[in-house]
Amino acid sequence: MAEEGAADRRADILVVGSVALDTVETPFGKAEEVVGGSAVYFGAAASLFGRVQLVGVVGDDYPLDRLAFLHERGADLSGLEVAEGRSFRWSGVYEYDLNARRTLSTELGVFADFEPTVPASFRTARWIFLGNIDPALQLRVLDQVDEPRLVACDTMNYWIERDRDALLELLGRIDMLVINDAEARELSEDHNLARAARWILERGPRHVVIKKGEHGAVLFHEDGVFFVPGFPLEEIFDPTGAGDAFAGGLLGQLARADSLREAELRRAVVFGCALGSFACEAFGPGRLGDLSLHEVGARVQSFLEMTRFEHEMPARA
Amino acid sequence: MAEEGAADRRADILVVGSVALDTVETPFGKAEEVVGGSAVYFGAAASLFGRVQLVGVVGDDYPLDRLAFLHERGADLSGLEVAEGRSFRWSGVYEYDLNARRTLSTELGVFADFEPTVPASFRTARWIFLGNIDPALQLRVLDQVDEPRLVACDTMNYWIERDRDALLELLGRIDMLVINDAEARELSEDHNLARAARWILERGPRHVVIKKGEHGAVLFHEDGVFFVPGFPLEEIFDPTGAGDAFAGGLLGQLARADSLREAELRRAVVFGCALGSFACEAFGPGRLGDLSLHEVGARVQSFLEMTRFEHEMPARA
Repeated sequence: MAEEGAADRRADILVVGSVALDTVETPFGKAEEVVGGSAVYFGAAASLFGRVQLVGVVGDDYPLDRLAFLHERGADLSGLEVAEGRSFRWSGVYEYDLNARRTLSTELGVFADFEPTVPASFRTARWIFLGNIDPALQLRVLDQVDEPRLVACDTMNYWIERDRDALLELLGRIDMLVINDAEARELSEDHNLARAARWILERGPRHVVIKKGEHGAVLFHEDGVFFVPGFPLEEIFDPTGAGDAFAGGLLGQLARADSLREAELRRAVVFGCALGSFACEAFGPGRLGDLSLHEVGARVQSFLEMTRFEHEMPARA
Repeated sequence: MAEEGAADRRADILVVGSVALDTVETPFGKAEEVVGGSAVYFGAAASLFGRVQLVGVVGDDYPLDRLAFLHERGADLSGLEVAEGRSFRWSGVYEYDLNARRTLSTELGVFADFEPTVPASFRTARWIFLGNIDPALQLRVLDQVDEPRLVACDTMNYWIERDRDALLELLGRIDMLVINDAEARELSEDHNLARAARWILERGPRHVVIKKGEHGAVLFHEDGVFFVPGFPLEEIFDPTGAGDAFAGGLLGQLARADSLREAELRRAVVFGCALGSFACEAFGPGRLGDLSLHEVGARVQSFLEMTRFEHEMPARA
């Protein structure tokens, strides 16, 4: 914020998603009822780059003061409804292999009746992220916004299995699908990721970004394919929210650059990987709340150093 | 060969490993008793770059004429012993997920009594690859060579579990370990690849190259970390031998460049990934036998296009 002066002239980035209380156990320890959910992790990352506008719902038991770090980054939480009842709670365990997680319990609470309402002041946001919620609700959000420049969307196996039709309709109305590798395979019913990405591109989105956990991410679109590795962290404390932080870094950087040129898309995917890696360094979104853009830039620089090589195509013999 | 004129002045690359007959079933079909084994796949790749010198053993039932493509690339097979008995046979199945394979049968035949003897004319080879065989035998090969510039070595879970001591002794005598991710984890007893690589580096080799199948490869050494993605093939016919073809491309390119500079090491890992990807395009090593260096260079160029991005570190705010 200091960089921007008194008036925050940064781009508006709208996110709709879950705001939850997570209880997470990893080989490194256990955290009880930390703030989480797709909108929180996305917002924690994207608020480094632009003015986040958050739409979601919590129960009257939610510790809203623990979202103060979002306020401090200029996020507008006026779209976060407080409903009577219990907040959405999730608990899970990551075993030795931190790529695989097991859900212990999901308690939807007030989230079960969530009907996203986009406040009037949010409707002109040009950068929109539809976090992983019912695709029917994701569609209704799109009915409430004006002319966004980019709509990106996440989903999960639950919706692929239960509401495939709404999901396919949604694919026809978004610009970018951000999805993990297992979900891309399930959605396309094809194990091969390159073919799975092509299948998705044929259904509407101009860009598909596939998240591969410790193996990084891949951007597929008509301009080709772009790979970023996972950052080689020696300690992964808690991967919860890394995918949403990834999306926050990706959309945030695009909004900041105000561009969808190939070079900016590629760089934004690297920013996504950087934010995803920071998300793993602590339980909850705390590490993202502490971050500076300078630190993020330095990690993006590390990705550059870890991937660059030289090659000149020789003339044909 | 045409590039080199009548005298083959290319570097000598010594490989010791298995020469086998493979029966492989994948979702795309089945191939019976195709020539295979680590020395054959390595040789098929490395012979594009240098003069391969092959040490191995086959039974008197082996169809040596099917190794003619190695001869044509200038490989010297005078270290391939023909022993009385049956050749080494392996059969396996790749399921839907081509990353996982199941061994149906392993018939060692004459390979059970293999005692590698390095012919006098091979002992001055400067580039050496010890394919996946008993580490005690890999050590004995090292006793028979003069002053190699680089000794690279592969191994597998079988030896990690059965002859860990010899393997640890070997690590102290080689320059580069080329190993897959599951084996790196098993060897170091650490699930985290970054820590696993550090563990291995502390035991001797200056370079560790970890193969990650469809996720590419990573070079770890004191100069840092270098990632290459897997090539996004839409059809993977048969991954058998891809890891050995990878090693052949890696060592071949290093031998051709006659350099261990950081930039050459990085580029060589990309050549390895390129050869590994070509190996998957057909059953058996046939695709590698057909390849030209120009095609390989074009694929390396594709890797460059799939990974490059721009970023300038901003000044600190």
